[in-house]
Amino acid sequence: MTFTRTSVNAVVSPEGSLEVLSQDEVNRLKDTSSNGHHEMLRRCALAVLSCGSPQDDSQALLDQHPDFDIEVLQQDRGIKLRLTAAPAEAFVDGQMIRGIREHLFAVVRDLVYVCNEIDQHPRYDLEDSSAATEAVFHILRNARALQTNLSPNLVVCWGGHSISREEYEYTKDVGYHLGLRGLDICTGCGPGAMKGPMKGANVAHAKQRTTQRRYIGISEPGIIAAEAPNPIVNQLIIMPDIEKRLEAFVRLAHGIIVFPGGVGTAEEILYLLGLLSSTENQQHPLPIVMTGPESARAYFEQIDAFLVQVFGDEIRHKYRIIMNNPAEIARYLKAGIEDVTHYRCQHSDAFYFNWHLKINPLFQQPFHPTHEAMRQLQLHRNQPTEELAAQLRRAFSGIVAGNVKASGIQAIQQHGPFELKGEPAIMQSLDQLLRAFVAQGRMKLASEEYHPCYRIIN
Amino acid sequence: MTFTRTSVNAVVSPEGSLEVLSQDEVNRLKDTSSNGHHEMLRRCALAVLSCGSPQDDSQALLDQHPDFDIEVLQQDRGIKLRLTAAPAEAFVDGQMIRGIREHLFAVVRDLVYVCNEIDQHPRYDLEDSSAATEAVFHILRNARALQTNLSPNLVVCWGGHSISREEYEYTKDVGYHLGLRGLDICTGCGPGAMKGPMKGANVAHAKQRTTQRRYIGISEPGIIAAEAPNPIVNQLIIMPDIEKRLEAFVRLAHGIIVFPGGVGTAEEILYLLGLLSSTENQQHPLPIVMTGPESARAYFEQIDAFLVQVFGDEIRHKYRIIMNNPAEIARYLKAGIEDVTHYRCQHSDAFYFNWHLKINPLFQQPFHPTHEAMRQLQLHRNQPTEELAAQLRRAFSGIVAGNVKASGIQAIQQHGPFELKGEPAIMQSLDQLLRAFVAQGRMKLASEEYHPCYRIIN
Amino acid sequence: MTFTRTSVNAVVSPEGSLEVLSQDEVNRLKDTSSNGHHEMLRRCALAVLSCGSPQDDSQALLDQHPDFDIEVLQQDRGIKLRLTAAPAEAFVDGQMIRGIREHLFAVVRDLVYVCNEIDQHPRYDLEDSSAATEAVFHILRNARALQTNLSPNLVVCWGGHSISREEYEYTKDVGYHLGLRGLDICTGCGPGAMKGPMKGANVAHAKQRTTQRRYIGISEPGIIAAEAPNPIVNQLIIMPDIEKRLEAFVRLAHGIIVFPGGVGTAEEILYLLGLLSSTENQQHPLPIVMTGPESARAYFEQIDAFLVQVFGDEIRHKYRIIMNNPAEIARYLKAGIEDVTHYRCQHSDAFYFNWHLKINPLFQQPFHPTHEAMRQLQLHRNQPTEELAAQLRRAFSGIVAGNVKASGIQAIQQHGPFELKGEPAIMQSLDQLLRAFVAQGRMKLASEEYHPCYRIIN
Amino acid sequence: MTFTRTSVNAVVSPEGSLEVLSQDEVNRLKDTSSNGHHEMLRRCALAVLSCGSPQDDSQALLDQHPDFDIEVLQQDRGIKLRLTAAPAEAFVDGQMIRGIREHLFAVVRDLVYVCNEIDQHPRYDLEDSSAATEAVFHILRNARALQTNLSPNLVVCWGGHSISREEYEYTKDVGYHLGLRGLDICTGCGPGAMKGPMKGANVAHAKQRTTQRRYIGISEPGIIAAEAPNPIVNQLIIMPDIEKRLEAFVRLAHGIIVFPGGVGTAEEILYLLGLLSSTENQQHPLPIVMTGPESARAYFEQIDAFLVQVFGDEIRHKYRIIMNNPAEIARYLKAGIEDVTHYRCQHSDAFYFNWHLKINPLFQQPFHPTHEAMRQLQLHRNQPTEELAAQLRRAFSGIVAGNVKASGIQAIQQHGPFELKGEPAIMQSLDQLLRAFVAQGRMKLASEEYHPCYRIIN
Repeated sequence: MTFTRTSVNAVVSPEGSLEVLSQDEVNRLKDTSSNGHHEMLRRCALAVLSCGSPQDDSQALLDQHPDFDIEVLQQDRGIKLRLTAAPAEAFVDGQMIRGIREHLFAVVRDLVYVCNEIDQHPRYDLEDSSAATEAVFHILRNARALQTNLSPNLVVCWGGHSISREEYEYTKDVGYHLGLRGLDICTGCGPGAMKGPMKGANVAHAKQRTTQRRYIGISEPGIIAAEAPNPIVNQLIIMPDIEKRLEAFVRLAHGIIVFPGGVGTAEEILYLLGLLSSTENQQHPLPIVMTGPESARAYFEQIDAFLVQVFGDEIRHKYRIIMNNPAEIARYLKAGIEDVTHYRCQHSDAFYFNWHLKINPLFQQPFHPTHEAMRQLQLHRNQPTEELAAQLRRAFSGIVAGNVKASGIQAIQQHGPFELKGEPAIMQSLDQLLRAFVAQGRMKLASEEYHPCYRIIN
Repeated sequence: MTFTRTSVNAVVSPEGSLEVLSQDEVNRLKDTSSNGHHEMLRRCALAVLSCGSPQDDSQALLDQHPDFDIEVLQQDRGIKLRLTAAPAEAFVDGQMIRGIREHLFAVVRDLVYVCNEIDQHPRYDLEDSSAATEAVFHILRNARALQTNLSPNLVVCWGGHSISREEYEYTKDVGYHLGLRGLDICTGCGPGAMKGPMKGANVAHAKQRTTQRRYIGISEPGIIAAEAPNPIVNQLIIMPDIEKRLEAFVRLAHGIIVFPGGVGTAEEILYLLGLLSSTENQQHPLPIVMTGPESARAYFEQIDAFLVQVFGDEIRHKYRIIMNNPAEIARYLKAGIEDVTHYRCQHSDAFYFNWHLKINPLFQQPFHPTHEAMRQLQLHRNQPTEELAAQLRRAFSGIVAGNVKASGIQAIQQHGPFELKGEPAIMQSLDQLLRAFVAQGRMKLASEEYHPCYRIIN
Repeated sequence: MTFTRTSVNAVVSPEGSLEVLSQDEVNRLKDTSSNGHHEMLRRCALAVLSCGSPQDDSQALLDQHPDFDIEVLQQDRGIKLRLTAAPAEAFVDGQMIRGIREHLFAVVRDLVYVCNEIDQHPRYDLEDSSAATEAVFHILRNARALQTNLSPNLVVCWGGHSISREEYEYTKDVGYHLGLRGLDICTGCGPGAMKGPMKGANVAHAKQRTTQRRYIGISEPGIIAAEAPNPIVNQLIIMPDIEKRLEAFVRLAHGIIVFPGGVGTAEEILYLLGLLSSTENQQHPLPIVMTGPESARAYFEQIDAFLVQVFGDEIRHKYRIIMNNPAEIARYLKAGIEDVTHYRCQHSDAFYFNWHLKINPLFQQPFHPTHEAMRQLQLHRNQPTEELAAQLRRAFSGIVAGNVKASGIQAIQQHGPFELKGEPAIMQSLDQLLRAFVAQGRMKLASEEYHPCYRIIN
Repeated sequence: MTFTRTSVNAVVSPEGSLEVLSQDEVNRLKDTSSNGHHEMLRRCALAVLSCGSPQDDSQALLDQHPDFDIEVLQQDRGIKLRLTAAPAEAFVDGQMIRGIREHLFAVVRDLVYVCNEIDQHPRYDLEDSSAATEAVFHILRNARALQTNLSPNLVVCWGGHSISREEYEYTKDVGYHLGLRGLDICTGCGPGAMKGPMKGANVAHAKQRTTQRRYIGISEPGIIAAEAPNPIVNQLIIMPDIEKRLEAFVRLAHGIIVFPGGVGTAEEILYLLGLLSSTENQQHPLPIVMTGPESARAYFEQIDAFLVQVFGDEIRHKYRIIMNNPAEIARYLKAGIEDVTHYRCQHSDAFYFNWHLKINPLFQQPFHPTHEAMRQLQLHRNQPTEELAAQLRRAFSGIVAGNVKASGIQAIQQHGPFELKGEPAIMQSLDQLLRAFVAQGRMKLASEEYHPCYRIIN
């Protein structure tokens, strides 16, 4: 007879990063987790514990585990976590799977650190660009994600979490070829294009007997439940908001690959190309490849056309499109990362954090997509490329929220679609691109007809 | 454009086990590899280098690489291997994949060791049972497969290399559940049931952050080309013949799982149950499970019926059939291995080599399946269980050869099917079992109709 | 011809603990080291670089290297130190000895941490007992001195830095017997009784093939120049003041040995026994041994008599005197540490930091020995034992300053000896003890006649 | 009260190298140790267990422990050793010190290996030069002394075991300066010049935080009792005879230092310079330094004069005399070893074994110094330098035996002094050198008057 249980009560000890705490720190941690931030902790913890499930609807997940709870227990020599009604799949014969235990404590670590050390510290006045970067740096260092003994080898992979089987297999194949060449992977840590490259690299690393393998997942509280970290992630980091998550990606990256995705991926592309368009970053080397299987060619042609239409031809110098050739992509990134290494050495910059890249505060300040804020976006070419990119990034960010985030969906239900307006040529390109996403089913997971959460007005 | 090459010339250095050789040893190695054993070395090396290919026909592999060659180069401080026209898939941008390099030198290591130290040494007079065991021990030790610092955790998985997709996925799932519980895997190192458990365990080991993971593959020169080591194998051993390969399995195993397979798997079952039927091994603990997805239930019912028919009811105490329940199987083995550990401690036996198990010389002496030898098999119950099992094991071994080995096929073409005769009840059971294998397509990979290589006469 | 140079200019990179700094942190570190704290940094650094020299007069050291300077260089990816006119003995063929490099960066690490994170942080209001303990904890954790993976095995050794050859050899012998039993050593990191146990343990650890060996040295800025860390110290910590140094010792210790010493050692004994006399610490297990060669028997008899006279007979339950028997001492501590381990497990206390020990604020508040403060000391038995011990501790601390610290010597020259008064019986015991120290030459290193810096008045 | 016991009975398990044995190997080991070789094993084991004692008279040692015995116990999963009446100083609270346990099993390992694998194997026909070298290689490899992952850094130190305190301190100082520069030490593993360099290097390695430190001791059964391995040796090797011990030294060495010593040291010098005088070794780089404190200058001037007298001026190109300058010696060796590294790379020779050095069989064949053999020595310049060196080496070897070995002393008592004759100029030089050794008290440890065991006749 099979051994089945749908939920488990357990007390678990920390793994690695939360072991040596002072009594005062334990007290603050307990306070943090039981007061205002408890619900956030509960949701993130549940996401991590459900990592094996195919679920990607955060509300549904919570509905399935209404009694799940998490409590920090204080002990003189550290903390433990008491879990109530936790998903059974996180356990093997009563013992929590070690990787999941690491993820669980990573969640606690990051939420508490941000809450106690970042939010309340005057040093990180987040209006200030360099203060925002300091905050990103400290969160990453506290998570032990900044390792000094490694040569540049980290490839950030972006792309949709709901992609076709063919596209998924393709991301695995690219990851495999990256791994064969000693490259590590960093993604947004959900399924789809966030999981494929890690799985592929894992097999390649095994073949090459690579012992130090990094599969870094960077999430944020608003997204982790929908895109739970897959089990391969061996370094999980929870950034406090979407803008710092994006900054963490580009500060850590030695190269970036963009796989097919939806509006979220478009947001990332705008963010990245916007940064690199800044005058100060003109000489900054960072290999960027857009790729997919042959069937995704049209997708990237649309993206490319949109980018050229909006920013002009020279934007094409910032990226390369290489379709259907995993080995070639891996070689291209390998070579590009050698340039990055050379540049960092020349400029005495760290390998583990890209200090030299300038990031305009427009890209750092959190954007809250209200109807008003969406209407106010300046979508015209009568401004520096960088600023236009920042405005468009926000437009896409708003659409993501309107599509999938609880707060956004509610706002749309109350007030109708967001209204976007701007220079006609831009608006037309944007409209085309969004329609294409709709037509290709990249807007949302749900199978029924898609009702746009935005309206182009002119 | 894609980077393609079908073959590569290269000189490669050893990895790990062949580094410290004396000048005399290098000379002998060079002699061995260029004289009588060169063709065997060439074939095994080619199999290892082609591990990524879906090919499982050894002759076809050789035909595809007619110019492939391998030569041992002598240097004062060791050896190198010169490869000519080697399969390109073993290389990444001109560098051989490290895991394949390890496999390549494992082949050289084992062939040369057997050739120089076992075959020519009077100590290993292979008529003697304990000498045969000594030979197995020394080959394993020379391959560094005997590790003293590990608790018993090695599960040997047997089963067919050409199984259905469903069965393959099932073997992965079982491997996953074994891996979650800290168990390591040993197989015959080809595809199918030899690869699935390793892939599953690999994912589980990653989830559990297990750093010391063993995926042991045990092959022999006659079989490696057809069942090339898959890339996950991180410890490859080439035993000199089928009997020593079988002995290596049972001396290393702390538990055994039998997945669905064909005549080869039946041979393994007969070998194993034959051993355990010996009076001296009555108390010897070794957990054995036969398992498969629900669809394979009939298969194991036939096996079970055959075993009971031939050996009587008590044979059932030696194994357990658990269908379609990977977690249960893993728990059963985990518990059984605890008994094994206890037994070894009590009897001061090593964890890494099962000295206590007695093996009758009938199971150790190489069997050469000529028509005459097949006809002489004593297939009746008028002898100890153990001896009948040994006779039946040989019958199956002959059929495997007649089905797939070059020498066997040739003999059948010349002289017609092997003739098997014996006690009617036995022969009837055997006939039924073999017919079932034919009906289920487990006899051979080829899709066309199967012509039996044997004939039951009475 | 010999290669000689008396000083070296060099730029050195950090080793280990200061590698990953943010740009802001580098700026603050640079500011700290160039402003108010520069002279302290310079003096500590010079002490560390001179660790090979027999020098133990801090002013003489500075006089010999008037041009020595140290500067923090900022780089995007970290810091470097520029040294000017550094002592040549810290270098081998132009490369700084790695152990000394570690010490140098330990000094920078601790000075800067205290300066930026402790002194300026409202959290560590040092009037508050638990805040003082938090400060000690954070300095130790920042120095990576709190290791979670070790069983209790740390023996703190106290005693004089200027002891006889026979006593020094005895401390080595005790260290050897501790090391043979797997115990690690923590001392005040100068010569004499601070070096001997480490040297002995080092040989024993080599014999036992112990790979993880800790030789912890805890110093403070006022004392490091006179008692420079010897080369064996592989974990150097600079606490900000004498009281926190004493607290660090007792929080880290699993057992304590007191070798012969002078007034400083007496101060340590009063501190320790004072703490343990507190009602709250009555059940707290901590093995304490006073020991020396046979020739030191009289010394410990005087100490013992003084303690009994002042605190009564029951004080003897807190320590044991075992003369001239290194093996017995090691066995006694080994057994006592097992009790400590048991107690910590029972009370869920950490192994690496003794949270349970209560420390009265009287022992934590820095004492500045002015003539007025010395006169005000309450040296009578009409108060709890603990408080009397704290008062006496301060009396000894003042005499140490008057003997050897620059500020103290100057005060004595201006205002004459400190005046101590109190209950006659106490004062008489104190007088006897101090006279004995004078007679045995334990007051000061200098060979000429000793002029007491104190006067007993009644 | 002190814990004292003079002897201990114990059963100990192997450490490291004897763990994985087959049943047959255990049987042979048991046989070897209980039959003909038992007395040799007993004597070597006793020497190892007494390593802490100042004893250096092998007979006295045996007399002190008449009941000591050692027995190999067979177990299925390996061996254990039963010790009876073993010296108590090898144990701490009933547990054998781990380093001594390693030495004990090194003795068993080497005696048994030589006995079973070398002596009885036709492959090592020791008349053949390359067979002798193969034997040396296999013994070293079996002892795991050939490590592939290290750059050349091994300095062999020769010199007397009974030297003055000043000379001993000097050898420590030289070892210290070698260790500071990352060099490892190999000696004959007794006291005096065999221990000093290791002690010095050990302190330097600690300062430099060197984790992989090798202190190799090479002994032989005839000498180990008189020169027991000191505790710092972490790799002990017992070669079967004096000639193979000498060959092991030069095959492993990347540089050689000769400290002051007696006739034994002279024997080593003759061996070394004889080898290097061979035409085939003319270009072979090997830095050789003779050194001592200033007080030893006369000693090396005599050695130098003797060498020039006998071999001519050009012999001086083979070595350098550097008095009283440890740092300079370390730098000279460091530079010389870089040449060695370069040469080995160029000639594809191993770093861990000097295959390229030719050794004339004259230096390999064991010499048994009977009166007849001594009289037959060809001590004249009418032969190649190499051969004259070999003859002189034997002369010194005979005098060593006559001085200190039991067999030699007995022979002298029966037949009077050895008679040496040859070319007058040579004999005169030899006479002078030997007289100087006598005058300086370097002939023998004993304090009474020295009676020469040889006579120069002409």
